[in-house]
Amino acid sequence: MSEAATAAAPRATIGDSEFDRDTALTRRAPGVYDIDLSAGWTIINAVNGGYLLAVLGRALADALPHQDPFTISAHYLTASQPGPAVVRTDVVRTGRTLSTGTASLLQYDEQGNEVERIRVLASYGDLGALPDDVRTTATPPAIPPMEQCFGPEDGPAPVDGSSAIADRLMLKLDPATLGWALGQPSGKGEMRAWFGLKDGRDPDPLSLLLAVDALPPTAFEIGLRGWVPTVELTVHVRSRPAPGPLRVSITTRNLAGGFLEEDAEVWDSAGRLVAQSRQLARARLA
Amino acid sequence: MSEAATAAAPRATIGDSEFDRDTALTRRAPGVYDIDLSAGWTIINAVNGGYLLAVLGRALADALPHQDPFTISAHYLTASQPGPAVVRTDVVRTGRTLSTGTASLLQYDEQGNEVERIRVLASYGDLGALPDDVRTTATPPAIPPMEQCFGPEDGPAPVDGSSAIADRLMLKLDPATLGWALGQPSGKGEMRAWFGLKDGRDPDPLSLLLAVDALPPTAFEIGLRGWVPTVELTVHVRSRPAPGPLRVSITTRNLAGGFLEEDAEVWDSAGRLVAQSRQLARARLA
Repeated sequence: MSEAATAAAPRATIGDSEFDRDTALTRRAPGVYDIDLSAGWTIINAVNGGYLLAVLGRALADALPHQDPFTISAHYLTASQPGPAVVRTDVVRTGRTLSTGTASLLQYDEQGNEVERIRVLASYGDLGALPDDVRTTATPPAIPPMEQCFGPEDGPAPVDGSSAIADRLMLKLDPATLGWALGQPSGKGEMRAWFGLKDGRDPDPLSLLLAVDALPPTAFEIGLRGWVPTVELTVHVRSRPAPGPLRVSITTRNLAGGFLEEDAEVWDSAGRLVAQSRQLARARLA
Repeated sequence: MSEAATAAAPRATIGDSEFDRDTALTRRAPGVYDIDLSAGWTIINAVNGGYLLAVLGRALADALPHQDPFTISAHYLTASQPGPAVVRTDVVRTGRTLSTGTASLLQYDEQGNEVERIRVLASYGDLGALPDDVRTTATPPAIPPMEQCFGPEDGPAPVDGSSAIADRLMLKLDPATLGWALGQPSGKGEMRAWFGLKDGRDPDPLSLLLAVDALPPTAFEIGLRGWVPTVELTVHVRSRPAPGPLRVSITTRNLAGGFLEEDAEVWDSAGRLVAQSRQLARARLA
């Protein structure tokens, strides 16, 4: 999309965007929600783990007395498919400043048996109630200006196969972490990008759950190929993000025994570190 | 303890040590365990969160078909007290290489009502079954040799109040991260130490759950005082540790809004990064 096209397109707003429509749940009973998982957030044939976490996070925001995920851990059990799914939530504890709950995403197999896809444990609070004090020593990722970064629309598709999610994301990768797409991975476990939703919806705590798991796997820059399925993903949302594009930096330092970690930092347009995450993923060692 | 005393003392073994005795559970029924939480692992009056995680981790090792915690997330709900407690486990899914389960630690208030202390979600596997491939780019913490580091026995007690846990740990802090104990915190969110169990028991995956939460809080070196209660702690155990002392490095980069993260790395005597953890904790901003 050219800059002119971006400027001309009507910007979607929080609450009225593809992301909001595709994470919307219908409450069937207290703690039981129905959703039709959209095929619009798939990578190759897999439903993106960050999109799924946002779905579960939204169910918990409804089920708990607090609105914002402060820390949310997801264990990915089986591969989710686009289509009907059920989310069940359970309140563990409600406190004054934090509430804790669990959520499960379930689908049905061909015999009609319930299959659990994801189990989540999370503590929610009110980001708006936090003091303004910031003593963060971390610095924003060293990423060139957006116009010097590259997205799928800037060249041949870097990933084989169709990825519907690419149509919904504004993802501009740092050229320094794009070697894998040219067959020359840097060997470093780093991936950096500008991130947004393509329809222009500004970020909020729920879309941060998507942002931490939306970049190509760092494993590609290490020189590995193939799928890097997430075993567990924990996200700390630390601040309500300012409007505008996010900068996402992902680092892997410990690739061993067929597993690796991916540490993500998400920085907002105001230069605030708004989310930190870590996931444990399986690596296919070549 | 002097080196001579260490050499003379009979070394405890895995399965027959204070740590093993104090994390031992009695299975009352399938998925229901009794334990008397030891007062020996308290810091001031609080039961150490790493000790509690090891208790829950041990219950899950019994309840699940796999033995080793690959990734374990704990949400700390209310403050545990030394004394009787119940652990309830629930199997979420059993797979070929990974099993997932939940565990709850419960105690009773003065009226006899059940109060949940901690909720855990974890995936277990078999560390012994992993391939040997190591491509880790992280490097061991820059910490001086053990004899140049300092423990509670090397000077006046650095923390006010009595901490029973100090009698059970071999903890030798890097002088570069000890400024807080002398009233001169470095301002950096770093803490590094040599870590072991004082009775000489070698590390195993369960004791790694203790190791990640046993150092003084990084907040002390940032210049904060007082209690830094853990909200959530996730540990990835990546390898069975070699015998001998561990090196533990903890880093905080994002202190903001009354919360901070603590990232721990645990390295074994063979130079392998055996565990990584991150916790979200509350900070009392001065």
